[in-house]
Amino acid sequence: MQQPNKINVLTRPSLAEAAALIEKAFAQRRTLIVAGTCSVHYVGRASSTLEPGERILIVKSDGSLLVHRPVGYEPVNWQPSGSIFHVQVKDSGLEVHGVRQKPRENVKVTFSEVLLASALALDDSGEFSLFASEDDMHRAILLKPDLLEEGFKPISWEKKVEPGFVDVYGEDKNGKLVIVEVKRKTATKEAALQLAKYIEPIKAKVNREVRAVLVAPSLGKDVQRLLATLGLEFKALDPKTCAEVLRRTENSKLESFFKPATQ
Amino acid sequence: MQQPNKINVLTRPSLAEAAALIEKAFAQRRTLIVAGTCSVHYVGRASSTLEPGERILIVKSDGSLLVHRPVGYEPVNWQPSGSIFHVQVKDSGLEVHGVRQKPRENVKVTFSEVLLASALALDDSGEFSLFASEDDMHRAILLKPDLLEEGFKPISWEKKVEPGFVDVYGEDKNGKLVIVEVKRKTATKEAALQLAKYIEPIKAKVNREVRAVLVAPSLGKDVQRLLATLGLEFKALDPKTCAEVLRRTENSKLESFFKPATQ
Repeated sequence: MQQPNKINVLTRPSLAEAAALIEKAFAQRRTLIVAGTCSVHYVGRASSTLEPGERILIVKSDGSLLVHRPVGYEPVNWQPSGSIFHVQVKDSGLEVHGVRQKPRENVKVTFSEVLLASALALDDSGEFSLFASEDDMHRAILLKPDLLEEGFKPISWEKKVEPGFVDVYGEDKNGKLVIVEVKRKTATKEAALQLAKYIEPIKAKVNREVRAVLVAPSLGKDVQRLLATLGLEFKALDPKTCAEVLRRTENSKLESFFKPATQ
Repeated sequence: MQQPNKINVLTRPSLAEAAALIEKAFAQRRTLIVAGTCSVHYVGRASSTLEPGERILIVKSDGSLLVHRPVGYEPVNWQPSGSIFHVQVKDSGLEVHGVRQKPRENVKVTFSEVLLASALALDDSGEFSLFASEDDMHRAILLKPDLLEEGFKPISWEKKVEPGFVDVYGEDKNGKLVIVEVKRKTATKEAALQLAKYIEPIKAKVNREVRAVLVAPSLGKDVQRLLATLGLEFKALDPKTCAEVLRRTENSKLESFFKPATQ
């Protein structure tokens, strides 16, 4: 029952043997794994150099590329899908060369020694489902307030305001008070009416302008009109985006690239 | 000259054989590669489920984890370093279980079939160097204006202003004109004086407040005082951050997680 060509593996091959396996993998659009001593050169948007060391190269069937060092969850080099690859053995070593047209990018991985080379025909149609609760959505907005809007500054959350609790509560860039009600599914008329009810006592108490924003992945039928009538706003935000923000914000160095440095 | 334990490889092992290799890899802090049919369950900040399919699991020596599908450069599941792993064979299959304490996160990869299992002792101390030119830094600020400051809106760049060219030119969130001079190395007194010279003719021409910002990875000795004297500002920004922004902004879906949805 086994597919004979599902997997090819070479352990400690010569560079010529590895090149033959790699060339076949590219021709057959297999997923390629190569581990060994390599250096990497990239030129495109900016440029980079990685001096020799032992790493794992993965080239996927869609032409995306990853180079992984033995530590860290982030690849040291990567290319999105769409690169065209070729391989050749030169005096300098076994060269895996990827070229992408738009934007123009070149990546060259040069192996001086190969420990493992494997070509795999992988079949994967399994669905990925990411789940975030309303509470997760609150936390995502607190961690990344511009999910709501630029310049939003959270003050408090799950604040008791008769007759209940306000989900998130803050100030906009113009100093107006903002009351946020979060729903993880399509917002109904009931959600709009609930929010309208919550802001009345707040409006009565504070001596400043109050905005109320209903946050949900989408709006139900006729809810947009009701919101307008009630003087409420809507911001589209889905639980999946929030889940990703939660996962990445605390864990990821990537995050720092997307925030202005606060030095 | 070969290290005998540098690499272990099993092709199409039984689940019990694969589990033995995996257990040893965890005990010896090797880099582990397993390809085969698996499902993935994650619970922590939000939660996710990945239905069965053929993928590549990588667990690195620092306890970081990646699950890669056969397409796309992004992992479908990942964990940063610091997880503790164990493996066991159950009726449901071969379970690789990673637990992280802070934040509490659990990831479970269950293999029903293993095509390839390899444990590698990888040695990598090669330096990674990323290079961006001053022109790359301009482009990064144009692509991601909040690298300069929140609310900055670029209007033009490399604009001819006697006696030369202004690098980037825009408006701040309060409507003031902002002139930006970019240096990719430590900014000198000469850079500060050059910027002061450039803004004079602009101030003379426009009927509004003008700010001038010197952007560089750092300031030379006494340059901060000179800037203050000249009424200029400083923003720390390094070429590496700009290079990453350039690479990620156009290529990466990640980006969308860090921008407010514009729906």
